[in-house]
Amino acid sequence: MPTQSSKAKIAILGASGYTGAELLRLLIRHPHVEIVLLTADRRAGKPMAEVFPQFAPYKLPTLSAVEAADWQTLQLDLAFCALPHGTTQKVIAELLGRAPATKIVDLSADFRLSDPAAYARWYGHEHVAPDLQKEAIYGLTEVYRQKIKTARLVANPGCYTTCAELALIPLLQAKAIDPDEIVVDAKSGMTGAGRAVREDMLFAEVSEGFHAYGVGHHRHMSELDQEFSLAAGRAVTVSFTPHLVPMNRGILSTIYVRGLKDSLPEDLHAVLSKAYAHEPFVHVLPFRTLPATRHVRGSNMTFIGLAADRIKGRAIVVAAIDNLTKGASGQAVQNMNLMLGFPETMGLDQVALFP
Amino acid sequence: MPTQSSKAKIAILGASGYTGAELLRLLIRHPHVEIVLLTADRRAGKPMAEVFPQFAPYKLPTLSAVEAADWQTLQLDLAFCALPHGTTQKVIAELLGRAPATKIVDLSADFRLSDPAAYARWYGHEHVAPDLQKEAIYGLTEVYRQKIKTARLVANPGCYTTCAELALIPLLQAKAIDPDEIVVDAKSGMTGAGRAVREDMLFAEVSEGFHAYGVGHHRHMSELDQEFSLAAGRAVTVSFTPHLVPMNRGILSTIYVRGLKDSLPEDLHAVLSKAYAHEPFVHVLPFRTLPATRHVRGSNMTFIGLAADRIKGRAIVVAAIDNLTKGASGQAVQNMNLMLGFPETMGLDQVALFP
Amino acid sequence: MPTQSSKAKIAILGASGYTGAELLRLLIRHPHVEIVLLTADRRAGKPMAEVFPQFAPYKLPTLSAVEAADWQTLQLDLAFCALPHGTTQKVIAELLGRAPATKIVDLSADFRLSDPAAYARWYGHEHVAPDLQKEAIYGLTEVYRQKIKTARLVANPGCYTTCAELALIPLLQAKAIDPDEIVVDAKSGMTGAGRAVREDMLFAEVSEGFHAYGVGHHRHMSELDQEFSLAAGRAVTVSFTPHLVPMNRGILSTIYVRGLKDSLPEDLHAVLSKAYAHEPFVHVLPFRTLPATRHVRGSNMTFIGLAADRIKGRAIVVAAIDNLTKGASGQAVQNMNLMLGFPETMGLDQVALFP
Amino acid sequence: MPTQSSKAKIAILGASGYTGAELLRLLIRHPHVEIVLLTADRRAGKPMAEVFPQFAPYKLPTLSAVEAADWQTLQLDLAFCALPHGTTQKVIAELLGRAPATKIVDLSADFRLSDPAAYARWYGHEHVAPDLQKEAIYGLTEVYRQKIKTARLVANPGCYTTCAELALIPLLQAKAIDPDEIVVDAKSGMTGAGRAVREDMLFAEVSEGFHAYGVGHHRHMSELDQEFSLAAGRAVTVSFTPHLVPMNRGILSTIYVRGLKDSLPEDLHAVLSKAYAHEPFVHVLPFRTLPATRHVRGSNMTFIGLAADRIKGRAIVVAAIDNLTKGASGQAVQNMNLMLGFPETMGLDQVALFP
Repeated sequence: MPTQSSKAKIAILGASGYTGAELLRLLIRHPHVEIVLLTADRRAGKPMAEVFPQFAPYKLPTLSAVEAADWQTLQLDLAFCALPHGTTQKVIAELLGRAPATKIVDLSADFRLSDPAAYARWYGHEHVAPDLQKEAIYGLTEVYRQKIKTARLVANPGCYTTCAELALIPLLQAKAIDPDEIVVDAKSGMTGAGRAVREDMLFAEVSEGFHAYGVGHHRHMSELDQEFSLAAGRAVTVSFTPHLVPMNRGILSTIYVRGLKDSLPEDLHAVLSKAYAHEPFVHVLPFRTLPATRHVRGSNMTFIGLAADRIKGRAIVVAAIDNLTKGASGQAVQNMNLMLGFPETMGLDQVALFP
Repeated sequence: MPTQSSKAKIAILGASGYTGAELLRLLIRHPHVEIVLLTADRRAGKPMAEVFPQFAPYKLPTLSAVEAADWQTLQLDLAFCALPHGTTQKVIAELLGRAPATKIVDLSADFRLSDPAAYARWYGHEHVAPDLQKEAIYGLTEVYRQKIKTARLVANPGCYTTCAELALIPLLQAKAIDPDEIVVDAKSGMTGAGRAVREDMLFAEVSEGFHAYGVGHHRHMSELDQEFSLAAGRAVTVSFTPHLVPMNRGILSTIYVRGLKDSLPEDLHAVLSKAYAHEPFVHVLPFRTLPATRHVRGSNMTFIGLAADRIKGRAIVVAAIDNLTKGASGQAVQNMNLMLGFPETMGLDQVALFP
Repeated sequence: MPTQSSKAKIAILGASGYTGAELLRLLIRHPHVEIVLLTADRRAGKPMAEVFPQFAPYKLPTLSAVEAADWQTLQLDLAFCALPHGTTQKVIAELLGRAPATKIVDLSADFRLSDPAAYARWYGHEHVAPDLQKEAIYGLTEVYRQKIKTARLVANPGCYTTCAELALIPLLQAKAIDPDEIVVDAKSGMTGAGRAVREDMLFAEVSEGFHAYGVGHHRHMSELDQEFSLAAGRAVTVSFTPHLVPMNRGILSTIYVRGLKDSLPEDLHAVLSKAYAHEPFVHVLPFRTLPATRHVRGSNMTFIGLAADRIKGRAIVVAAIDNLTKGASGQAVQNMNLMLGFPETMGLDQVALFP
Repeated sequence: MPTQSSKAKIAILGASGYTGAELLRLLIRHPHVEIVLLTADRRAGKPMAEVFPQFAPYKLPTLSAVEAADWQTLQLDLAFCALPHGTTQKVIAELLGRAPATKIVDLSADFRLSDPAAYARWYGHEHVAPDLQKEAIYGLTEVYRQKIKTARLVANPGCYTTCAELALIPLLQAKAIDPDEIVVDAKSGMTGAGRAVREDMLFAEVSEGFHAYGVGHHRHMSELDQEFSLAAGRAVTVSFTPHLVPMNRGILSTIYVRGLKDSLPEDLHAVLSKAYAHEPFVHVLPFRTLPATRHVRGSNMTFIGLAADRIKGRAIVVAAIDNLTKGASGQAVQNMNLMLGFPETMGLDQVALFP
């Protein structure tokens, strides 16, 4: 662990995507880290300013190919891995094989599922690094904080899942809601789909419109199943439908629940308020006040609101995060802070950018 | 009823709002109508081009105050009423008192509820024209076509309600879904809120963001209750949450249902396909294909899709309309066509504007 | 030429791009045409509804490959060619070689420049069909109407050029402005760049931002040079800078000019008003009233405004079109109407979609 | 001046507008300031979180009325004044009358013009605080840094003017461009118009469209005249046209200039590069690389690019800022840092938020 006077040596593997850029946005201002490696295979040899011009004023390493990295010589304190699914497990296995003292925060889906069978079912193939899969800690910071502090490999949660899990896990743990009647209707800004160059991601295709996708089958369901079941102490399967909103950043989850044991909506609100009373990055709004994505934009904050449905016994929970910050790179830095012994909020004090 | 060679004399009361402009957009191209009166109280005396510059190339009546209208002399065939709630019932009572042969399509909420008690409960006061309330026909064209043909006063449905009702009424009528487990998660473009000059409607307030509103209490719920209960033959109350999308036009309703009597999702899809097989303005997409708002933008079309949820017995119905066209002015013209004996699709042949 | 009772047989070559879809939007409602062929090489064999779901309710030919077309058998009255630059000249030469009576409206840039040397200079290679290049008529309808009526091959102008040329040609013809001091600052919606699947066209790349591109070198300059020089009767070169606006449709050109011979801004306005007094698709706004793109969206209309600059002798002309309609497919249909003897405005009566 | 160990006591007068919120966003993270007063007359008594929900997690003073402030007791080190034009000069005169040691950064237009006659001409009335008008220093930091350090009252420049002046002042000072042939075509996001509740600012009015406004007369012209004339050493009047872009933040100015004394575009670029070589908040891009607003969003950075026009001797300068940051509140904090003896960049290290 680096001392306060030195700086931790950090790499971003996959720096040319949106989560890579968001990591850099946050880390450039972090007082105790030094970026020593930025990889982007197809852009190797180019300056970061060519891929993301906002970084032109900053002095940064030239982009390089991940396979050109000499992990032993680099002596990284920590690597953020923002690579595509599948590639990731190979790169991390290789990296940890060469430099086993390196800590890793992985932003891909490769290490989120702890059950090898579930992994094989959802991803269609066996995991290539089952030992690492076993070792990995699920990086939902507010729930797994203690384990993250001593972890070597943290699997940063998905954006949809972070949002829904922060809203529901305390309610499930308290057995305050019926695990069999949960509907999660989620809406995301376009960066949630990454920087993939696809026709359906073009401005003119998505602007001025709204649609659902992945109905009945979206890989984030597997994470929800895992974490909700753990929280409830029994198997939980929820209805989950993601949608795309013509905006860049933000996820809003509207979640329909039924209170158990005569729980009133006010009781559910109290459960959430208590659970997050001391959390720096989760803010529970007053009863009946609901969040908007724009009020967390660019910040690592989660806003959660809860209101009574007009149907007796039912409530509506609404949670909002920035999918690139708390939903990805912000939570990754939050985890890095814990893993390297820095204050958990360091470098994450950005106030939301609104308007 | 005007002959084919003459043109029907038409008024738009409340022409300076978005539904007024949308009526004009459609009617200017309608071969059998003539716009003889456009009212807008606060803009009286101004040309329409000052309020909506897109009409500059067209010859149209100058805007006037509604109270200046001489209903007897005007001899209107039909008036579209796009006035605010409350004002409407007074204006229509006055108009029909003076010129009882005039037909009316009312786009406000004033005549949508047939039960005086429900009206008083949702709107906080007694209806001022209870006889007209009794006379009014609910203008969901596909459901009430025959009654609309002979109606004098048609209460055009709300935008959210048109979308959700077209998606669910055939399923409720067929008793194919459980009326007690319906969740309607609805998303609307900004024009759904009208041209109200409010801070929360400013571009910089709503752009790049997404939020829910009216949670637990939205007046469109009263319409849903009325129509769903009629369709099911018993009292139905649904969960309904509206959201605002940073786009101008479009409503998408994501609806979570449970099949009854072992109905498979495929069976539910078959019910919808059959119900709308011959409808010009409702198109049921192939099983598992879901609609997007952009594909109905500016058209009077409704697109409905249905997919199986991953939870056995559950399905997700998604419906999309343009809130200003099928959700308001387009359906109003569709109703006018029926009321005046024109072909139902006349003037409504616009293909969706995408991109 | 088809009789009024029959329908003209029409093909759209390149139907899977935005100008192809826009042609279809307009032609589906055209009373005297029948779509008999839709080509899209990479999507051959698919229904149009898979490429553009808004067409799902319409009965249309399945997409096919352009090289599979049997031009002699098809007996097309007219083909719209919305293919990429370069490909176009080969396809048209082949088509006219096989079926020389076919009329063509070409939406590419291949036949816009009449000077073979200018073509070679701007496009980097010799034209492969120089005879057709000579035959082609430049399709700026308001300027070349008479020649278009009898043309076999019409080169539909570019979107930027249509907008700037309609604003300036009457002023240059009247020698009312100094041809050496013209600055055209142009702004376009994203569909102007077509449906190209490129990183810089992704929603998240262009939303919430604004930038210039092609500064100092954009191929539309060559068209401006050609047409402005013809109008002025001498060589004219203008400053021209295009920009991208985060919206789907619309071009606004802000044009800075200096009046000649003591022309006051009012005089310049009078020149424009007179030139377009009887044009169905060009509307000159009152002096000092300036247009917005939203007021022509989806229509074939051009709005032109002119105001005095605060610098004596200078004026600012602002013109707005929808780049897909008057800037491409709308003008193409306008030209088709002339070429096939239909009323010029037929099928082009859409009122602008605002909001 | 506060010591490093204590914190400066800061007020924001007019905290409920966008520049007020942006000040707060920046100051909450500033290590050496303490917010002791937030005023907003119409919202007095309310928490800031009701006006801007993103501040809910922060402990802040309740909003109060400006006239309720006891300036003597407050002992402010510095007040930011983000009040409407006209009101401002009265409030500042009152404040400085009571507490003359307070420093002021005024974000309104009230003190930007140093010539009383110019003020009266552009604003239609005599200035009510002519002595303060004389005392005020124009707050374009890069140009007036030394004077700002010792100023009591700084008049923060307008957003359009900051952008255009940073791009042109070095060129005018170097006599590298012709002052009589400058065209500034400027484009701004919607927040530039503030939080005014007006119909033309509604989402549905401005989304999916683009237009010019204030053509021939915009008050920022008076600032440009003043500063460009000072820089050139002679009277300069430029063509200036502002436009509104459907985005929240950002100004892009496309500026057309003619080089003097055979200056090549490369020479102009060298002048700018040299002028800003050591500026923390102005970054000159490589020759021919042009900026985009999205790459400075939320940061205090100015990006400037320059390319040759195709017309010999002419060049195009493009500058981009975030109108709320460098164009308003960021530059205000930059000025505060100078006035209070803090490092100029303190609290302004946010990296641009893209995507």
